[in-house]
Amino acid sequence: MTDYPISRFPVPELSELPEDIRTRIEAVQEKSGFVPNVFLALAHRPDEFRAFFAGHDALMDKSDGLSKAEREMIVVATSAVNQCSYCVVAHGAILRIRAKNPLIADQLAINPGKADLSERERHIVDFALTMATDSASVTDADMDAMSDRGFTDDEIWDIGAITAFFAMSNRLANLSSMRPNDEFYAMART
Amino acid sequence: MTDYPISRFPVPELSELPEDIRTRIEAVQEKSGFVPNVFLALAHRPDEFRAFFAGHDALMDKSDGLSKAEREMIVVATSAVNQCSYCVVAHGAILRIRAKNPLIADQLAINPGKADLSERERHIVDFALTMATDSASVTDADMDAMSDRGFTDDEIWDIGAITAFFAMSNRLANLSSMRPNDEFYAMART
Amino acid sequence: MTDYPISRFPVPELSELPEDIRTRIEAVQEKSGFVPNVFLALAHRPDEFRAFFAGHDALMDKSDGLSKAEREMIVVATSAVNQCSYCVVAHGAILRIRAKNPLIADQLAINPGKADLSERERHIVDFALTMATDSASVTDADMDAMSDRGFTDDEIWDIGAITAFFAMSNRLANLSSMRPNDEFYAMART
Amino acid sequence: MTDYPISRFPVPELSELPEDIRTRIEAVQEKSGFVPNVFLALAHRPDEFRAFFAGHDALMDKSDGLSKAEREMIVVATSAVNQCSYCVVAHGAILRIRAKNPLIADQLAINPGKADLSERERHIVDFALTMATDSASVTDADMDAMSDRGFTDDEIWDIGAITAFFAMSNRLANLSSMRPNDEFYAMART
Amino acid sequence: MTDYPISRFPVPELSELPEDIRTRIEAVQEKSGFVPNVFLALAHRPDEFRAFFAGHDALMDKSDGLSKAEREMIVVATSAVNQCSYCVVAHGAILRIRAKNPLIADQLAINPGKADLSERERHIVDFALTMATDSASVTDADMDAMSDRGFTDDEIWDIGAITAFFAMSNRLANLSSMRPNDEFYAMART
Amino acid sequence: MTDYPISRFPVPELSELPEDIRTRIEAVQEKSGFVPNVFLALAHRPDEFRAFFAGHDALMDKSDGLSKAEREMIVVATSAVNQCSYCVVAHGAILRIRAKNPLIADQLAINPGKADLSERERHIVDFALTMATDSASVTDADMDAMSDRGFTDDEIWDIGAITAFFAMSNRLANLSSMRPNDEFYAMART
Repeated sequence: MTDYPISRFPVPELSELPEDIRTRIEAVQEKSGFVPNVFLALAHRPDEFRAFFAGHDALMDKSDGLSKAEREMIVVATSAVNQCSYCVVAHGAILRIRAKNPLIADQLAINPGKADLSERERHIVDFALTMATDSASVTDADMDAMSDRGFTDDEIWDIGAITAFFAMSNRLANLSSMRPNDEFYAMART
Repeated sequence: MTDYPISRFPVPELSELPEDIRTRIEAVQEKSGFVPNVFLALAHRPDEFRAFFAGHDALMDKSDGLSKAEREMIVVATSAVNQCSYCVVAHGAILRIRAKNPLIADQLAINPGKADLSERERHIVDFALTMATDSASVTDADMDAMSDRGFTDDEIWDIGAITAFFAMSNRLANLSSMRPNDEFYAMART
Repeated sequence: MTDYPISRFPVPELSELPEDIRTRIEAVQEKSGFVPNVFLALAHRPDEFRAFFAGHDALMDKSDGLSKAEREMIVVATSAVNQCSYCVVAHGAILRIRAKNPLIADQLAINPGKADLSERERHIVDFALTMATDSASVTDADMDAMSDRGFTDDEIWDIGAITAFFAMSNRLANLSSMRPNDEFYAMART
Repeated sequence: MTDYPISRFPVPELSELPEDIRTRIEAVQEKSGFVPNVFLALAHRPDEFRAFFAGHDALMDKSDGLSKAEREMIVVATSAVNQCSYCVVAHGAILRIRAKNPLIADQLAINPGKADLSERERHIVDFALTMATDSASVTDADMDAMSDRGFTDDEIWDIGAITAFFAMSNRLANLSSMRPNDEFYAMART
Repeated sequence: MTDYPISRFPVPELSELPEDIRTRIEAVQEKSGFVPNVFLALAHRPDEFRAFFAGHDALMDKSDGLSKAEREMIVVATSAVNQCSYCVVAHGAILRIRAKNPLIADQLAINPGKADLSERERHIVDFALTMATDSASVTDADMDAMSDRGFTDDEIWDIGAITAFFAMSNRLANLSSMRPNDEFYAMART
Repeated sequence: MTDYPISRFPVPELSELPEDIRTRIEAVQEKSGFVPNVFLALAHRPDEFRAFFAGHDALMDKSDGLSKAEREMIVVATSAVNQCSYCVVAHGAILRIRAKNPLIADQLAINPGKADLSERERHIVDFALTMATDSASVTDADMDAMSDRGFTDDEIWDIGAITAFFAMSNRLANLSSMRPNDEFYAMART
């Protein structure tokens, strides 16, 4: 639909890529119907690509403790603070699907304080936003407050670690002007 | 020397760890004479540990383009902005060793604008600081300016990607109140 | 679809409203198929309602100088800075229609610096953002720079005055937790 | 006394203005002894002029709930945050008159936290300052706190709406470098 | 006229003070017709009092290089940034006298960018504001720019040193809630 | 070890200095084994030099109420916020000596919230940081809170006054690019 580049940095052809990376990308393409641009934009650095998706999957492809929708809420809210177009648009689509809610992604991206969140979701998002914008200020008292609200150590770690991972991811996307695929914008809107 | 915990989160015994992780830690201990606390503080999450160090090594264990000292300068300057005690102290020590300069780490941590940097080093540090604090503002014009100063695309990516990696790392350290080993403070001071 | 209130403040019944206000609202409903919530949320103060829409129409219902799409770009970009859910969602929909571009509203709301803008549109949005966030800093030099780029005094006034009007509008919407109609989110997405 | 222009934008002659606008300005002149520059600086846009003063009068020319002095306190404190010379100087004079207090305007403009305010006035000013600088953060809890302190819904709306109106007004004045009349500075000083 | 305390800390009686301090205060009282509260508010610490006024006089009681009016402009503009009621009100009065200009103090306190300044005065105020708010960012290039504009090293030092002195003074006044004498507000208004 | 200038401004020879200043500098040299650069960098202005050190000694050379180590903690933490290389490095060394703790200075400079502080020390540092960054916001309630924690009025004044003094000192050091002596970096590290 448009002719904009998907990255400021080199984007290799699929055929040039190492076997394991090409296989992973083809699997995503099969499942989604298109290749999300993050896979192509990171492929020029195979070792970093492998580490990135290993880290991503370790945090995002599970649903014990935090649900998958809750994990995506963290991504959308903190990526919006970092003004990361790729992550807000792409994970916004995934969040709409995971949460079965066509409004929640835009709400979180624009003003998390006005989003339709449960009390638990609000605590998750608030803690994530503090981790995103001023992690140095998180004290033992903040941790204790999260425990008092019923969060386990593993859940608290997940909130912080997902925020930390996307602090990296947002910067890589902003560095490369990584462009969200047009498909993401309209996905799961109704 | 002190009895402070090294992390707010569980720290497993070496003997409990998966073989590959234990081996890696023992190798570091052999080389450094002690185990830097980051290895112990991340070990409770083996998959995340593996992804973290794979990402770290892909960016920090090489010296083509940016030298190892330049890479550590990025870490110290951007970690100081994020007020990450672990990264400033531990990588400050490594930077003093790499740069053979006992003053440069403190200078970068306190006020990078007053540090004894070459013009090239100053451009590296300035670009890294922008990536750390406002990556969304990096425009094509900023990229072109870096090219005009003689930086290759690979070098620009490295500056951005190291900053991005430590944006994650700083948040994990702040989340866990990861404590720098006492050994790092006095290392390579003369 | 949801049961959330559209405002923290009283929302009168259409039948209770003064004739001129009821007529205006019914006209909008006829045209759009629904009543945008801003009309209902401001109706409890008839004099303020009349002044508000008189001001709105004076700035937004014309297309000499700035096009209608350009006017909506100013609204979406500056309302995003003010984290105004109502204005970003509702005017985002209008912008998609006016610009015949399903991507532009989200791009502007998330990171205007990465949006697909012409050079003229970029100057408009940049000037509007400065007016939104630090109007005190706008100097004669900034005005002259806009003139040099080909903007007339009337266009510069319009950019500033639309930004000023939505500085008010965003605060009223945030004050009242004005809720965007669900219809806006999915409008003109393809 | 000085020869500085009162606006960066065109200032029409009184004789060129539409009848209703000229009449309004002449009435003010009769009452005050001079024409406050805001009337002249907005007159080049008659429709916007009419909407502006309709909105202004709806909020400022009444004294049920908030007193007129309290309304002016909101204007001075929030206009100081926006560094709006016109509004601080002109409404500072009006506030000194309304409050019969020659010190209060400067106190509020310089540091509202040190101004001689009653407890009720402090709550009004604090809520207004939050609305001026971070309206997105105002939550239901903030609203409830205001109710608990004895403010009615109408009073809370007035504080927010006056702040919102002057968020617009401050930007128009900053846009046009609207110059306060020299008369305002010394008015009601003793 | 009011009964507000002039300091949160102890204010000694004149008769309790060491001879040299009492003499100094009586001299000021003779000259001004009243005792500016700063003399009383600092008197509880005689050694600090002596050092404070020695530093003050070394910077403010001379007119080679910077004129006395220019020195007071620095005080008013930087004290406004620090929201120091005492310094803005008291030195505002002195500035009106020194500059023979009844408008300049309020203009500088509200928005220095809109004040009626000569080009030289603007450079002085801009450099002072940077020193006040972000002295760490002042580079050799900034110093060279000041030299190019015709400022001597002694003048640059004076701008910086006056700003530095009032960074201290503003904090002492804010610490003690030092109250400006009512007399200052209306002084030299016409 | 290096050839960097110690100040952007003139540095007089010892032999050119007034007797009292030369005597003071020689005494420091005798005691410390070297002349801290602050003495040389301020010497070009003898009256300001005398007032500066009179103020310094009145606040720092005593140990009633606040201990000498506590006073140095205030200096290091607030100078780090102001990114003052000279003060953090030089007073960091003094703090390590006074507190007999080789870690505390770096901890306070990087992230005071993670430093190994007693509860009393934490209150001191927190109050000092507020005074350094936003003194205008300190209210009677903050003062009362300090009293409730057991601090006397004299201790509260000392915390505020030391912070104020170094707000000045940091700006002078940043203005002059005052260079810390190399000796300070490695002092008292073990």
